[in-house]
Amino acid sequence: MAYPKNQYIRPLLTDMYQLTMCYAYWKNNHHNDYAVFDAFFRKCPFKGEYTIFGGVGEIIELLENFRFNESEIAYIKSLMPHAEDEFFNYLASIDASELKVWMVPDGTVVFPRINLIRVEGPLAIAQLCETTLLVLCNFSSLITTNAARFRKAAGADKHLSEFGSRRAQGTDGAMTASKYSYVGGFDSTSNLLAGMIHKIPTIGTHAHAYVVSYSGPSDLHNPLFKGVNLYELADKYRKESGLKTNDGELAAFSSYAIAYPDRFLALVDTYDTLSSGVPNFIFTALALNELGHKAYGIRLDSGDLAYLSLESKKLFSKYAEKYSVNFDHLMIVASNDINESVLRSLNEQGHAINAFGIGTNLVTCQAQPALGMVYKLVEVRNTPRIKISNEKDKVTIPCQKKAFRLYGNDGIAICDIMTRATDPDPEVGKKIMARSPLDEKKRMFVIPSKVEALNELFWDGRLVKPVANLEESRTRLISQLRTIRSDITRETNPTPYKVSLTSSLYDFMMNLWEMEVPIPEYH
Amino acid sequence: MAYPKNQYIRPLLTDMYQLTMCYAYWKNNHHNDYAVFDAFFRKCPFKGEYTIFGGVGEIIELLENFRFNESEIAYIKSLMPHAEDEFFNYLASIDASELKVWMVPDGTVVFPRINLIRVEGPLAIAQLCETTLLVLCNFSSLITTNAARFRKAAGADKHLSEFGSRRAQGTDGAMTASKYSYVGGFDSTSNLLAGMIHKIPTIGTHAHAYVVSYSGPSDLHNPLFKGVNLYELADKYRKESGLKTNDGELAAFSSYAIAYPDRFLALVDTYDTLSSGVPNFIFTALALNELGHKAYGIRLDSGDLAYLSLESKKLFSKYAEKYSVNFDHLMIVASNDINESVLRSLNEQGHAINAFGIGTNLVTCQAQPALGMVYKLVEVRNTPRIKISNEKDKVTIPCQKKAFRLYGNDGIAICDIMTRATDPDPEVGKKIMARSPLDEKKRMFVIPSKVEALNELFWDGRLVKPVANLEESRTRLISQLRTIRSDITRETNPTPYKVSLTSSLYDFMMNLWEMEVPIPEYH
Repeated sequence: MAYPKNQYIRPLLTDMYQLTMCYAYWKNNHHNDYAVFDAFFRKCPFKGEYTIFGGVGEIIELLENFRFNESEIAYIKSLMPHAEDEFFNYLASIDASELKVWMVPDGTVVFPRINLIRVEGPLAIAQLCETTLLVLCNFSSLITTNAARFRKAAGADKHLSEFGSRRAQGTDGAMTASKYSYVGGFDSTSNLLAGMIHKIPTIGTHAHAYVVSYSGPSDLHNPLFKGVNLYELADKYRKESGLKTNDGELAAFSSYAIAYPDRFLALVDTYDTLSSGVPNFIFTALALNELGHKAYGIRLDSGDLAYLSLESKKLFSKYAEKYSVNFDHLMIVASNDINESVLRSLNEQGHAINAFGIGTNLVTCQAQPALGMVYKLVEVRNTPRIKISNEKDKVTIPCQKKAFRLYGNDGIAICDIMTRATDPDPEVGKKIMARSPLDEKKRMFVIPSKVEALNELFWDGRLVKPVANLEESRTRLISQLRTIRSDITRETNPTPYKVSLTSSLYDFMMNLWEMEVPIPEYH
Repeated sequence: MAYPKNQYIRPLLTDMYQLTMCYAYWKNNHHNDYAVFDAFFRKCPFKGEYTIFGGVGEIIELLENFRFNESEIAYIKSLMPHAEDEFFNYLASIDASELKVWMVPDGTVVFPRINLIRVEGPLAIAQLCETTLLVLCNFSSLITTNAARFRKAAGADKHLSEFGSRRAQGTDGAMTASKYSYVGGFDSTSNLLAGMIHKIPTIGTHAHAYVVSYSGPSDLHNPLFKGVNLYELADKYRKESGLKTNDGELAAFSSYAIAYPDRFLALVDTYDTLSSGVPNFIFTALALNELGHKAYGIRLDSGDLAYLSLESKKLFSKYAEKYSVNFDHLMIVASNDINESVLRSLNEQGHAINAFGIGTNLVTCQAQPALGMVYKLVEVRNTPRIKISNEKDKVTIPCQKKAFRLYGNDGIAICDIMTRATDPDPEVGKKIMARSPLDEKKRMFVIPSKVEALNELFWDGRLVKPVANLEESRTRLISQLRTIRSDITRETNPTPYKVSLTSSLYDFMMNLWEMEVPIPEYH
């Protein structure tokens, strides 16, 4: 299939320090030491207590293309003129064939500190993946989470469409937002390139420009539909109403209805929603109806959306009754700066909107535009490693680890738990102690009814597990959310989900911490 | 030159309604009517009163590639199965050869409502550009503005480096942020792909992973530098200090210093900044010094940056004095969640930081992640058009327009003014009335000492004016900012810059407004 690929998914889309470290690893000849890196985040976005993971497909694309080309090598050489030629020969030789990569699948509900991605292999190569891997999953996960939250706020019965391309942070921001909004529960996008590449349903109507491009009926060059002048027919209804609406708008609507007699959706706020746009739509819909076609609906793009939608609905009913037609099917689509709290507030007020077109706030994740996924070395040469930092919250959890989700007998998740990979897995029906990683007082016993391994081996030198398609990820998300307690996913003061370590891992971490950190001396 | 292009700069990266409108324009046979579109924004970002424009190069790339390919046409056809074959033949035939595009150059200081881009040509083709054109300048302008604000907050003498790739909104978000941060006044980036493509200076040191990959001196496989074991030499200084620092960290620093004897910059917060990292750096720097090399400095990545930088500086002085060496040149680089207000607050507190590495807050424009540039039809078939909407602020200013900046005799900008393109240009020394577009009471007379046309014709069917390179845009921005009053660019309660219309344009707009909008009737 001929479609444009994202040409920026390159190993050179990385921080320079990855290359300077690579040289230093190589220079010290420990670049091939077997290393284990974890990717995780420390805090859920949007003041929430859950996150949805996304980005597996892009990371696989990176691994498949993980080879510096000639011009990239030449560029790196220009930055490090003192390095030996052998180093650049080494750089030119590396790829992802010695790496193993475990990930949680797209659409998984995930929590802080759990290793969502585990990369193992030669130290220098695993290190070199860091930046690119993070850019490919940070925003994907953020937008999936945002979309899932919008879906929850809107309710399951509303049509949600992503309209944000023009405001996205760059072209790939737009493409990623369209793709992962769909995974997060949106129904469609306005972005055609995303529609084509990712097979997402697309929708679109018209802009204000279409309306203002008509000054009046003299701009209608092909006014006939089924042999009837549609504008004149609509104008007949207008005359009967006694209203003075904008002529150019009525002309624009009739030409649009001729182009889309069965999908006529009109943007009604170009001049005045209730005194021009909605009436003009109704006159055109009545004209279409007379010729055997049903109009589709209206789009509101400014003003008080709850009020305008209810008033529009009243006008639909008034004319439907007057002319004995059925307008019950007419859709009301709303756009204009909609965010999660607007959706909640509209639902509280009451409205007659059937579908939302959501742009800026969705695609740029205005409430929090970045997810802080990080990538940390946790073991090298079979030696677990820890990083402490000056902020307790930034301590990493050492060791090659596995992560599991433990479920109660009601099918609801109790907690996630990380174990040393060399320790036995948690077992159904067997009591296990779960300890908070950073609070020694918090611990509990769990007897799980179901144990689920969170990470799956996607890459073992090559792709070993198929990447889910978008429909599969959407479905996964819906079933995952059913297993999470509602107080964890609620908007106001959500309860943090329990993320824990086994006793064995906890004790190991504490010992290593004490061993590695010098006790400060004050004089 | 072989470098990856942004393959998403395609005319299909657009909202579906552009295509549905295109068909309706074509169906009504007014798709070739001569049209004028304006791109502008309504509000400056970051609670500021100025914006820096960016994106000319990307928009030119779009215009140069503005042609639907076969698979795109096939996809569009699948969405609009009822449209005539002739329409798809028309779609396949169009390109940007009939368009004219005026823009303000990158690095221009710009203000609300001024038409920053003017696109003229056949209605349907000019309309089709909207979404892609906006995505290409909205984020570029936003990030340039953000970077310029960070530069102003940091002061001219600090080195600012963009470190944000991993947290960017997608790959192109990262690339665009690196490029336009540089235009906005940053000195370098950590992003190598951006460094290679855009010739931006790059910098990089090492990560925590590098430090934790060493457990102690036994991990040093090549410890000799100029025939001397560098670790042992550093350890000699450590022993003399009586301090117990982390062994792995000292080993990591010595191996890194061997790889970069003249660019040794150490990340010092892996275990504890003041009791391990900084001392270990100093011991290594003393060892390097003994062998004839100067260390470069340290990077702080957690904790209280002002305090830690001052304490580090004290430690440098203490050991410099003790061993009679000169450590005055040592750099202190700070990273960790730095934003505009952190920079201001650090400057107020006092600190010893020479360089900042800034990521998330810069590249995702956390303070406001989207700029609301819009694209509106203002004239078609020589008929000026207006869009009113239910929100006064969303009214568009009609007519094919020119925009000028008027300067006082001190070289400072007084206001921007828009004229009808058919009216005479403002003249130096000639009194002109400037009216606020939305407040009839606000007006003033200006006698400009200098008149500058803001829009330049970049595209007339083909590129007719070279796109500035990054260095030129950086320079332009600096000289532009000198002409803007400081109360407009200050952080707290900035004064809005005056954006105005000529009397002729103002009167025309008001007449059109009254003519187009029906007066609502209440019963």
